[in-house]
Amino acid sequence: MAEKYCNHSKHNEDVLNLIAQFAEFGATPEGGVHRLAASDEDKAARDFLCGWFEDKGFETLIDGIGNIFGVLKLNPDASQSAFFSGSHLDTQPNGGKFDGAVGVAFSCIAALAIKDLIERRDLQSDFQSFVVTCWTSEEGARFQPSLLGSRVFAGNLGPAEAWDATDADEIHVKDALDRIGYRGTDFIPSPDHYFETHIEQGTELESSGAPIGIVSACWGARKLSLTVTGQADHTGPTPMSTRRDALLAASKIILKVRDISDGSETLLHSSVGRIEVAPNSPNTVAEHVELFIEFRAPKTDTLDAAEAQLADAAGAVSKETGCTIAQSKRDVRDVVSFDALTNRSIAKALDHAGIKHIPLTTIAGHDAVQLQSICPSTLLFIPSRGGVTHSPEEFTSDDDLALGFDASLQAMSAIISNSASGAVHA
Amino acid sequence: MAEKYCNHSKHNEDVLNLIAQFAEFGATPEGGVHRLAASDEDKAARDFLCGWFEDKGFETLIDGIGNIFGVLKLNPDASQSAFFSGSHLDTQPNGGKFDGAVGVAFSCIAALAIKDLIERRDLQSDFQSFVVTCWTSEEGARFQPSLLGSRVFAGNLGPAEAWDATDADEIHVKDALDRIGYRGTDFIPSPDHYFETHIEQGTELESSGAPIGIVSACWGARKLSLTVTGQADHTGPTPMSTRRDALLAASKIILKVRDISDGSETLLHSSVGRIEVAPNSPNTVAEHVELFIEFRAPKTDTLDAAEAQLADAAGAVSKETGCTIAQSKRDVRDVVSFDALTNRSIAKALDHAGIKHIPLTTIAGHDAVQLQSICPSTLLFIPSRGGVTHSPEEFTSDDDLALGFDASLQAMSAIISNSASGAVHA
Repeated sequence: MAEKYCNHSKHNEDVLNLIAQFAEFGATPEGGVHRLAASDEDKAARDFLCGWFEDKGFETLIDGIGNIFGVLKLNPDASQSAFFSGSHLDTQPNGGKFDGAVGVAFSCIAALAIKDLIERRDLQSDFQSFVVTCWTSEEGARFQPSLLGSRVFAGNLGPAEAWDATDADEIHVKDALDRIGYRGTDFIPSPDHYFETHIEQGTELESSGAPIGIVSACWGARKLSLTVTGQADHTGPTPMSTRRDALLAASKIILKVRDISDGSETLLHSSVGRIEVAPNSPNTVAEHVELFIEFRAPKTDTLDAAEAQLADAAGAVSKETGCTIAQSKRDVRDVVSFDALTNRSIAKALDHAGIKHIPLTTIAGHDAVQLQSICPSTLLFIPSRGGVTHSPEEFTSDDDLALGFDASLQAMSAIISNSASGAVHA
Repeated sequence: MAEKYCNHSKHNEDVLNLIAQFAEFGATPEGGVHRLAASDEDKAARDFLCGWFEDKGFETLIDGIGNIFGVLKLNPDASQSAFFSGSHLDTQPNGGKFDGAVGVAFSCIAALAIKDLIERRDLQSDFQSFVVTCWTSEEGARFQPSLLGSRVFAGNLGPAEAWDATDADEIHVKDALDRIGYRGTDFIPSPDHYFETHIEQGTELESSGAPIGIVSACWGARKLSLTVTGQADHTGPTPMSTRRDALLAASKIILKVRDISDGSETLLHSSVGRIEVAPNSPNTVAEHVELFIEFRAPKTDTLDAAEAQLADAAGAVSKETGCTIAQSKRDVRDVVSFDALTNRSIAKALDHAGIKHIPLTTIAGHDAVQLQSICPSTLLFIPSRGGVTHSPEEFTSDDDLALGFDASLQAMSAIISNSASGAVHA
């Protein structure tokens, strides 16, 4: 089928242009992107995307959590309703140009390419429409939990609870969306398939030499917040023996979290990326600390064990420091498997097109993980240099983007065309 | 001399009222006070103080760093110019009602009491005027270094450097003072003596049963900022072995700081009260951390050793974690001794009045420590329950305040009257 695809270089140019245009909204002096969910920069990127949809003949829909959908009609007589493809446009603070934006840009250009293939009768569509999706607040940087828009869309979190989530300034998601004019009321068709291409944010593709990873599963995660409470006191005169220093206790916990993953016999990643300290004054013993802890592992048992060890450690640190330690939040993300049959049909299409690929698991959560709970979903990875991400250093070369787009288009075509639909829905 | 003092109960009521009135500016629901230097709350307290000065016949002067001086003429023929007495009105974030405000309130009411004693010929003054002082930004909570106003007044920091200091929002002291209208241009007379009463913020008075501490010396301090730089990365996929986690490294440093004081053979206090983390997102490995470290000790050698140990520890942690660690700030506060002769004459006056007292050293810095570098200075301590301070729980009983005011008035009278001046200036 590969030889049928028209003018690849033209598509590649469009893809690179679109990625570059997205990168302008929230561009930082260091060459990264700072575009927190529902910020002014996010609004600007969203406005641009909606304008692009209008220019290209897509119908634009916005749901109650601010997800944006660009609908392009493919085949009114098809047996299935909607083929969804997308990713997100929010970034980490001072993040990169590729995380999320690649998937949205690929979907935009692929929708037009697929439509073109259909009109030229090079492809038959088993789907009535192609829906490009931009999910709200995937990153979980400004608002928690992460994957907020896709989580609500997939029914894994109620809209009221999502609206009620707050950022560090106590601004609610609902108000933040209202402020930028993206709390919509549109009715959204149900997806029959969801497709996403994302940068790997790891180094397995680089080391294997394959440009494409077909993701078979997503690690599970436990995202836990611990609140440590000590006592505010003057850092000078207060005798060392009577201090109850919440930051000292929190530091012991941070080291324990790392010890737990270092000591695990099965694969386990851990982190403490965020800490909030009060009063956070150089001459007052810290009274309150909130720690944002993550454990990620391919096996549920490993996560259960890590949580149990953390609870023990918190008890010991509390005893040692005189601080109270309580769990204030617990978010569980189950281990998720993507549809094996779809992945097999994609592998076949890529083999046919002569594009090397390897199976991968993902450790990071992606919107596709949420979508997999309501429809067969696909996640492809393309390389990201050195695995560096959430940073201005995040980089994927133009060649890798071009090859990644080709592969994505092959994979989407395999799913969308009748030939693949049997496999997808077997 | 004690029996000559008029109507103590009237003074005590005035003192308690004034402390209660100060506590209204920035009052918190928890019963504390949140009145950061040069904030709206600080402005309100300053405005109230200036209004009080005007009502009571003081001349009000304001210098370039926002220090407020209320001048009351005592004896135009006296040999010495100005007797200064005061403290500060800024507080820690959600701090207490007594830290600073006690010294300002005591000085206000004592000035009137002393003037009354002179007019009734119960006291002779060797000073031409009594100058009540409210020093800017003693706490070092919003702006660093602490003791900012008294430090500049004593010539230990240039005004330009002080104006240039910034808070966490990068607001400069100069602009903050301009905003509240307290960057003055008045010429201030030189002090011939400085007097300050402060809460102990420790428990030695409580355990000794004495209501008054005469402070003989102030511990030295080293206030150091370390900047830890790692690499921002996704907390999920990034392999644990390649992470350079600045928050993990910072936590190791926090534990080392405590180890250094725990392991010291001579008296040494340590703390890390403030930490700034970037990007501080729950799913990004921390890239930058700034730690605000303090060491305090009665001996300079101890502080030198602690700094050397910290430098070694930083080197080891850097090696261990792959993060770079650099010292970004270093503030040295020398060990300071107060005037022994003055303290002896105060002890005599308190003995005469039947008020129990003990000698103390102070660990916390106080404005009197800065003033001691330009004139003989006196620091008295009164009890603070359980030593708790910088917190809404900070508490000194009305009885301790009353006794503390009596003792302060006795001590000031001894210094101000001719009988004591020989000792003071011997």
